[in-house]
Amino acid sequence: MALNNSFRTTDRLPVVPAPVLDALAEAGSPFTLADAVPEPQDAPALRWGILGAGGIANVFATDVPARSSGRIVAVASRDHARAQAFADAHPDAGKGQPVRAHGSYEALVNDPDVDAVYIATPHNFHCEQALLALEAGKPVLVEKSFARNAAEARRVFAAARAANLFVMEAMWTRFLPGQVLLRALASSGALGELRYVRAEHFQSLLHVERLNRLDLAGGALLDLGVYSVSFVHSLLGAPTSVTAVGRLSEAGVDVDEVIAMAYPGACATAASGMAAASNTAAEVVGTRGRVILPTQFYRPSALQIVLGGGHDAQRYEWDATFDGGFQFQAAEVARCIAAGRTESETMPWGETLAVLETMDEARRRLGVAYPGE
Amino acid sequence: MALNNSFRTTDRLPVVPAPVLDALAEAGSPFTLADAVPEPQDAPALRWGILGAGGIANVFATDVPARSSGRIVAVASRDHARAQAFADAHPDAGKGQPVRAHGSYEALVNDPDVDAVYIATPHNFHCEQALLALEAGKPVLVEKSFARNAAEARRVFAAARAANLFVMEAMWTRFLPGQVLLRALASSGALGELRYVRAEHFQSLLHVERLNRLDLAGGALLDLGVYSVSFVHSLLGAPTSVTAVGRLSEAGVDVDEVIAMAYPGACATAASGMAAASNTAAEVVGTRGRVILPTQFYRPSALQIVLGGGHDAQRYEWDATFDGGFQFQAAEVARCIAAGRTESETMPWGETLAVLETMDEARRRLGVAYPGE
Repeated sequence: MALNNSFRTTDRLPVVPAPVLDALAEAGSPFTLADAVPEPQDAPALRWGILGAGGIANVFATDVPARSSGRIVAVASRDHARAQAFADAHPDAGKGQPVRAHGSYEALVNDPDVDAVYIATPHNFHCEQALLALEAGKPVLVEKSFARNAAEARRVFAAARAANLFVMEAMWTRFLPGQVLLRALASSGALGELRYVRAEHFQSLLHVERLNRLDLAGGALLDLGVYSVSFVHSLLGAPTSVTAVGRLSEAGVDVDEVIAMAYPGACATAASGMAAASNTAAEVVGTRGRVILPTQFYRPSALQIVLGGGHDAQRYEWDATFDGGFQFQAAEVARCIAAGRTESETMPWGETLAVLETMDEARRRLGVAYPGE
Repeated sequence: MALNNSFRTTDRLPVVPAPVLDALAEAGSPFTLADAVPEPQDAPALRWGILGAGGIANVFATDVPARSSGRIVAVASRDHARAQAFADAHPDAGKGQPVRAHGSYEALVNDPDVDAVYIATPHNFHCEQALLALEAGKPVLVEKSFARNAAEARRVFAAARAANLFVMEAMWTRFLPGQVLLRALASSGALGELRYVRAEHFQSLLHVERLNRLDLAGGALLDLGVYSVSFVHSLLGAPTSVTAVGRLSEAGVDVDEVIAMAYPGACATAASGMAAASNTAAEVVGTRGRVILPTQFYRPSALQIVLGGGHDAQRYEWDATFDGGFQFQAAEVARCIAAGRTESETMPWGETLAVLETMDEARRRLGVAYPGE
């Protein structure tokens, strides 16, 4: 067994600056990093089956066994050779036993060694494959975007409710320590009342064939924009109104977009695009402080925390960058399943639905519809 | 004469990083800081009359005599005592002679010692006062927002054209060295094709009475948002479509807003608000590089310049912060008038009109209208 499971992510987190902890305590929400961010290696051991053998499945099969208590027992592709190649490329992912390669998704979801299924295929397949896993009695972690639209998501959640099985959108970024601290600052009132949130996620991905295909629900929004929209929702909830502008390709997929969101007490903007790379920054503005994520807001990254306003403002930094990132969501799934829960409090079904409703409205305004929707 | 006119702003500018200059040269636009940013002390000496005695007039009367060749010869307020107090507070602004205090705007625009009028009153007065100055045969620099709407601006420009007199919107930020370099990077193609521009300008200004009054054309947009909108226009021009969401106060002024702008090749967002302070950042994203202004994009500030994409990207910084800032626009006015021009190539009439048209459309969508518009 080549993996070194002594890698404990939370041991590598730097200390949160004392004035930031003081501000949280003063707001009535004392914050303890150890309580707020449980160590992924300490979660119940969960045996994962991966449905799909693409890029994000590769990240999952690398991060999760190395940095959490979980392991990968099986992978499935419609092309058996592709599944086998994936298994061969991850000899240590099973922590002592080889990853089993399945040539059908049915075989994977019915594999008795699989405790939970991770769906890592293009968006257009998510709904049917999540239903397949649930029908086989398996809890399921579904890559973001969770489905092509809110209607598909409702079908999956209805099936999960009927089967009393766990389902979660794989919005891994919500479980990152930086995002946990940010939400604590926002929800405690330590930043005052929130007035503005922005997030943008632009990457140069026009060369990726899948993203140019409307039948695969390609485009920037469901791949990149979902991070921006979900970030806004994680802090402000569902908006009262949504408007959007953007550009479509000749194939009809969205190349980039700016989504403007209105709230009773705030405004927000969620932007995304696949024709150029931005700094992928985000900012949360409150009446008593703000938090800036100057780069890669959706990954383990650095937070600039400004407390107070005007000339009294004090600036602190918490650079919570570390290796991987998927280990936190995998541990959350393991803990929820062990506790008999059907949804995560951090990434609940209602949030996934609300994010899809915002994206549905943005797509309606942009004129993007996927075949067969 | 207490002022030390040896203060030369451009002497204090740091050297632009060599790879940035190389990128401009490779794009076919060799950039020389001395050519692109003329020293404000070397502009023709211009004798200014200031119409209005509020906060921004105070900044002008401080910056311009100290940091450019210009001087202040007169100030006017409808309240003579207020004008006199302003004059007394700026004993050196006349560079050897006291600033004359006028108790009427008519007296100021007809003062034979006044070469040019700077209008520094609330937005709702700009149009009539600009017309007053032009009728008196005086060129005029009008505080931003230039007018309440595009229709008012058209009246002023028509009068200026008829009288063959210089008029410019006091969008001082366009003349700052950092913005000059940024526009050179964008227009040369050194950043590739622009795909996304964002700017946001949130400050805590709810306590300012003027901003809460609809009759004074208060609200966040005309005071703060104009910087964000103008920034986008300076790089992408007039959008093909504009949409907006925002919040209104009980008095009907806009408290904050997100404006989403669409272009044939890009998207943009211009946000503003007066209920909380943001980092006031901006970003310009191209296919071959990007520029981030992480804080105070509208002032002399630091530019982060990223050249190249993906793993090859190189990051440079040009920290062009310095004292003041109004000296550059004042010098531009002096140079244009001496050259017999009616408008500045850097801040031309068409740009002012286009920015107001974008703000008119945003206001229409927000439901903000000023009395008597």
